[in-house]
Amino acid sequence: MLIALDAMGGDHAPTITIEGAVDTVNEHSDIDVILVGNEPLLRQGLQGKRFDPGRIILRHASQVVEMHDSPSTAIRKKKDSSIRIGIGLVKAGEADGFVSAGHSGVVMATSLLLLGTSKGVDRPAIATLMPTLKDPFILLDVGANVDCKPENLLQFGLMGSTYCRLVLERAEPKVALLSIGEEDTKGNELTKEAFKLLKNAPLNFIGNVEGKDLFTGRADVILCDGFIGNIALKVSEGLAEAILKMLKQEITSGSAGRLGYLMLKPAFRNFKKRTDYDEYGGAPLLGINGACIISHGRSTSKAIKNALRVAADYARKRVFEEISMAIETSSPVASVDT
Amino acid sequence: MLIALDAMGGDHAPTITIEGAVDTVNEHSDIDVILVGNEPLLRQGLQGKRFDPGRIILRHASQVVEMHDSPSTAIRKKKDSSIRIGIGLVKAGEADGFVSAGHSGVVMATSLLLLGTSKGVDRPAIATLMPTLKDPFILLDVGANVDCKPENLLQFGLMGSTYCRLVLERAEPKVALLSIGEEDTKGNELTKEAFKLLKNAPLNFIGNVEGKDLFTGRADVILCDGFIGNIALKVSEGLAEAILKMLKQEITSGSAGRLGYLMLKPAFRNFKKRTDYDEYGGAPLLGINGACIISHGRSTSKAIKNALRVAADYARKRVFEEISMAIETSSPVASVDT
Repeated sequence: MLIALDAMGGDHAPTITIEGAVDTVNEHSDIDVILVGNEPLLRQGLQGKRFDPGRIILRHASQVVEMHDSPSTAIRKKKDSSIRIGIGLVKAGEADGFVSAGHSGVVMATSLLLLGTSKGVDRPAIATLMPTLKDPFILLDVGANVDCKPENLLQFGLMGSTYCRLVLERAEPKVALLSIGEEDTKGNELTKEAFKLLKNAPLNFIGNVEGKDLFTGRADVILCDGFIGNIALKVSEGLAEAILKMLKQEITSGSAGRLGYLMLKPAFRNFKKRTDYDEYGGAPLLGINGACIISHGRSTSKAIKNALRVAADYARKRVFEEISMAIETSSPVASVDT
Repeated sequence: MLIALDAMGGDHAPTITIEGAVDTVNEHSDIDVILVGNEPLLRQGLQGKRFDPGRIILRHASQVVEMHDSPSTAIRKKKDSSIRIGIGLVKAGEADGFVSAGHSGVVMATSLLLLGTSKGVDRPAIATLMPTLKDPFILLDVGANVDCKPENLLQFGLMGSTYCRLVLERAEPKVALLSIGEEDTKGNELTKEAFKLLKNAPLNFIGNVEGKDLFTGRADVILCDGFIGNIALKVSEGLAEAILKMLKQEITSGSAGRLGYLMLKPAFRNFKKRTDYDEYGGAPLLGINGACIISHGRSTSKAIKNALRVAADYARKRVFEEISMAIETSSPVASVDT
């Protein structure tokens, strides 16, 4: 597999994107990388690193999308950006997939423009992995669609289930709808309608789950509109940070606490690893007709490496085609109830 | 102040509701309590406790609302429930306020039926206090209104700000809208419209905040519809529990960890206290024409005591009348922009 990497995307680009690419080719014999970005910078960054030079290809891009650029501006005025060129390589068949830790809105818009949606898909969604007490689950949509229709949530279910089955390799993923009560009568207008569609879809639909169930590992795939998904994701990130900060304050305020904290450092480290988004390697754009993975802006080189691995896996298993098949197979069933 | 307490509401009623009432009259010379519920049970529960018997009044109610009762069933078939009788006491002017740790939907519906809304209020909202790295903030609505209009969010802002100013005694509370980006152009249809109304309202409106900002203490009052509010609240509760569980697992899995954990117990205890919903004493039904406070079903006697204190404060300061004034004052300003 040959994956294009937006070398200029993310808070610490291109240093950590270069590191991620180098680590990838050193650790995965079946993944080669095209580094897309400012070529002189990339060449300089690669100096002194040990890797098989035939397995990292450089591709110059004269422009960089900034976080304050709007998708429409980026698409109109930055036709030579690392994002545009990277996704263009996938379109041209010169790369099998694309990874970016840059502007997620621009990656989504450019993917839609150049690659389009998989057949049958109305709206693509961003799917992210979140840690639980057991295995991580997939939450979607986390931001691509702020206002959704019930039919969108049905398709999110089919897309998320397909991705979970193929990439996370879980048979018959348990799919749930995020709502405010377990009964099918609980929810807002959107979720109550979506519940009916999901119940009749060819999915292992386990019904509604509440916010408090998110982290117990009850479901493999949890569905919501992009507004709710973004809030749930950001609340979780913010709270986890706040809790660790508060605990550290409390712990280091006593002298026994300080000693205890030193003794507990390995435990805190393990905890961090378990809840570390870096381990999960980015969020796929489900429904886009190609393998595009968005990484967190704060990605480390490990996160980039994992995202490249997910992109390769996604491309190898042709998830974007399997999603079309899942949606086409389900359509007669779904339309009975609409 | 004389506050009616639903003695039968909550997971551990009437044991902890009785304890909460006794502690209240023993600690607060200005709050007397009417315990509403099964009188023989209450009489038995009070036996052997030390308190001024003139300051806890018993009021018999032959029925109890169960958690599986729907609001409409409870209202039709349980006219002698502790909730109905307690709120009836407020309506009749025999109590200054009401507290229940029972079925929040039934408390809301019965309050609406018997007390109605404060003048000018379209939809009441449930406002809860949430901990942050600094002071707690008020989140509303957390469940009374799953589908909202922009005008509802404007009123939530006026109600939350009034409550914050009077009961939490913060001058010019900072009011924010929960959304998915700080710019006014970020959000869903509802929040984008609500933003315009809030910007022109007589409020200290600081704009949008994201989910990650919830716990940094940037705002005193954060607004959202009841669906989002419920999800944000429940995700927070679920995640906090999961994090502490994971940390404990990691800590006790090593031998140094076990010792470290013992040394850290005071820190964990302080942390728990800082994030303890019990400290905050329940969620007022803002916009109801009276002082009604809902407590968590898992309330301890301390939580009940704090809820009784909040109810007394709310009634003494006539927050329900001040809310009417705030809404009436704002109306011409708000209507300019609608």
